[in-house]
Amino acid sequence: MAELLRVHGYAATSIQQLAHAAEVPVGSIYHHFPGGKREVAAAALRQSGAAYILLLQVLLDRHTDLPTGIEEAFTAAAEDMESVGWANMCPVATVTGEVAEAEPALRETGAEVIESWLDHGVQYFAERGLHEHDARALMSALLSALQGGFLLARGQQSKAPLITAGRAVASFAATLPITAPVSNEDRPAQDDY
Amino acid sequence: MAELLRVHGYAATSIQQLAHAAEVPVGSIYHHFPGGKREVAAAALRQSGAAYILLLQVLLDRHTDLPTGIEEAFTAAAEDMESVGWANMCPVATVTGEVAEAEPALRETGAEVIESWLDHGVQYFAERGLHEHDARALMSALLSALQGGFLLARGQQSKAPLITAGRAVASFAATLPITAPVSNEDRPAQDDY
Repeated sequence: MAELLRVHGYAATSIQQLAHAAEVPVGSIYHHFPGGKREVAAAALRQSGAAYILLLQVLLDRHTDLPTGIEEAFTAAAEDMESVGWANMCPVATVTGEVAEAEPALRETGAEVIESWLDHGVQYFAERGLHEHDARALMSALLSALQGGFLLARGQQSKAPLITAGRAVASFAATLPITAPVSNEDRPAQDDY
Repeated sequence: MAELLRVHGYAATSIQQLAHAAEVPVGSIYHHFPGGKREVAAAALRQSGAAYILLLQVLLDRHTDLPTGIEEAFTAAAEDMESVGWANMCPVATVTGEVAEAEPALRETGAEVIESWLDHGVQYFAERGLHEHDARALMSALLSALQGGFLLARGQQSKAPLITAGRAVASFAATLPITAPVSNEDRPAQDDY
């Protein structure tokens, strides 16, 4: 269901399409989501938000050097985006950009998902040895660069904006001190995979 | 007219509203823009795109140190955004995000405006002493960070995402070699204004 929101946005997606995508009758959707389309959309944003943060952590885990991991994660995002024909990549961005004025409750759900990404990022980067305030700044800069990179890559139909956005975030990461480097026992090096 | 597109997007803006904003009769709009709403929107995107790039250059010109100028420009953008109640900041992003599937001609206009920003940025940063390929990478990273920062700031209703996005781009700028530093005669220092 998040797929429909990601590609078409909120206004252009009907409750019938959401029911069809979920392979359930429309009545069943209203049974589980009495709030209708708005409530389904909020659940889809939360669910795909949780999946995206896991994907990001998997990509970052592949490199012991954090800046390298960041660059590779942005390159992977650029390749994914090319493979789906430069469609919108993030339902949270599509919906937050589109409905912030008209649907304040969904703006709040988008803000809640972004806040949960920040919290997960702080925890993740702190585990990789960054101070908590640096971890938060890095995750915030990473999310801005990723969302803006999606927009430029979509407009230009090119991987370059995302790859360059990743380089900039990697430069920022390289300026932040690692206070408690993680040992190789705790985090196996996978740079040569 | 770009104001309507910026705040409400393309689908929610009528030709009547555009005529009202321009203080002309609807017939007069069709006389000058036979393509109707789509053509008016394209003209508005081009016009505001040209204004935004000038504003960015004015902000960057205020500091002889490029990373400082970048951080201050993002802070100024964050303050502007707060002053308008966290509305969408960029009609190009609103329209590119919203209509890329449904209106391919407007996606192309958005891409054209982004390309013109990149070209202006390359020229500007080259004048400030960067290699051309570094100048292009910096402008691309800056635009991604700015667009993504707008989205996060809007979602969070906070200046922090934009200010942090600017810090990351400034870090990236600091890694790029200045090959032909501009003398003080050519570019007066205004850091102490």
